[in-house]
Amino acid sequence: MKIAVFGASGTLGRAVVERLGQHHDIVTVGRNSGDYRADLTDIASVRAALAKIGPLDALIATAGQLHFGTLAETTPEQFQIGLNDKLLGQVNLVLVGQHVLNDGGSITLTSGIVSDEPIRYGSNATTVNAALDGFVSAAALELPRGLRINVVSPNVVVESWEGYGPYFAGYEPVPAARVALAYQRSVEGIQTGRVLRVW
Amino acid sequence: MKIAVFGASGTLGRAVVERLGQHHDIVTVGRNSGDYRADLTDIASVRAALAKIGPLDALIATAGQLHFGTLAETTPEQFQIGLNDKLLGQVNLVLVGQHVLNDGGSITLTSGIVSDEPIRYGSNATTVNAALDGFVSAAALELPRGLRINVVSPNVVVESWEGYGPYFAGYEPVPAARVALAYQRSVEGIQTGRVLRVW
Repeated sequence: MKIAVFGASGTLGRAVVERLGQHHDIVTVGRNSGDYRADLTDIASVRAALAKIGPLDALIATAGQLHFGTLAETTPEQFQIGLNDKLLGQVNLVLVGQHVLNDGGSITLTSGIVSDEPIRYGSNATTVNAALDGFVSAAALELPRGLRINVVSPNVVVESWEGYGPYFAGYEPVPAARVALAYQRSVEGIQTGRVLRVW
Repeated sequence: MKIAVFGASGTLGRAVVERLGQHHDIVTVGRNSGDYRADLTDIASVRAALAKIGPLDALIATAGQLHFGTLAETTPEQFQIGLNDKLLGQVNLVLVGQHVLNDGGSITLTSGIVSDEPIRYGSNATTVNAALDGFVSAAALELPRGLRINVVSPNVVVESWEGYGPYFAGYEPVPAARVALAYQRSVEGIQTGRVLRVW
């Protein structure tokens, strides 16, 4: 299969490329690096990148910014960071991707464990990840031509533990390579509309 | 208790005012009507209205716009309608309300059944309602001073059946007066972080 990975330079993206690259033709896409450049928050750039890449069997997004901070001090502008970046950015990929994927192709997005397990400073993250889990359940029912969509909801990953560990006291970090298996399961499997939890 | 209802002129809002008005002091707030004017998408107007209203025991939001349409034709701008209005609008009420409610007060938001049961044309609605259900689960854990927060997730209501019925084939509409009971349960009860489903 030919697969485009948006956010391929990130911790999860690199693990996904390593895993799926063993059996598939991978195209990497990023804001500032990769085979092609695109910013998921700019749908025109996504459309342009996918037009250049050509026919595809799978789209994967492992990119997205969130706001972390106390609810007491959060501003609407901070809350919008997650809504516009991690949420609408990945939705944008679906809005474009549904029209360019080959029949039977798939889209795999990324949410995170805090949709189900809220953490301190994480109200924006819980909201955005829950929104993505919900979006996928609805989008799966509307996609035409046998297209599928799933979302991987990873625990905090071992490779990000130094930065995120303090927020995840008592959580059991998972290796990014293990999370990458869920993307493979989504791409090569037959499920659709599913939240693939890696906890 | 003194309770402010944002969106008091809507179908649900009127039922909530009727129910809670039997035992409480209700202040109605709306974009274009009510005792006070405020637009939830404009946090400054929310802050100004609450400053004028003074000390409160409960805040209720029954307002919020969504986009309905096929996923195939949805644009990012359309998708943002629900994110900015029904989602961020109600989040704004929490961002301000947490600082002005009396100790032990409550906030009750409104999502909807499509967070769990997607409908045709409803990908924006599912996303936004799932986000609200998630937000409340996280916010409840951060609120200080015994403040509580819940979200009411109603089925389509009898009073809106004429407009929304075609989208909800096979659903069993519930009277707005029955949905209003869930707001009473949230305001007068002890739950927090809960999705109160009325299906």
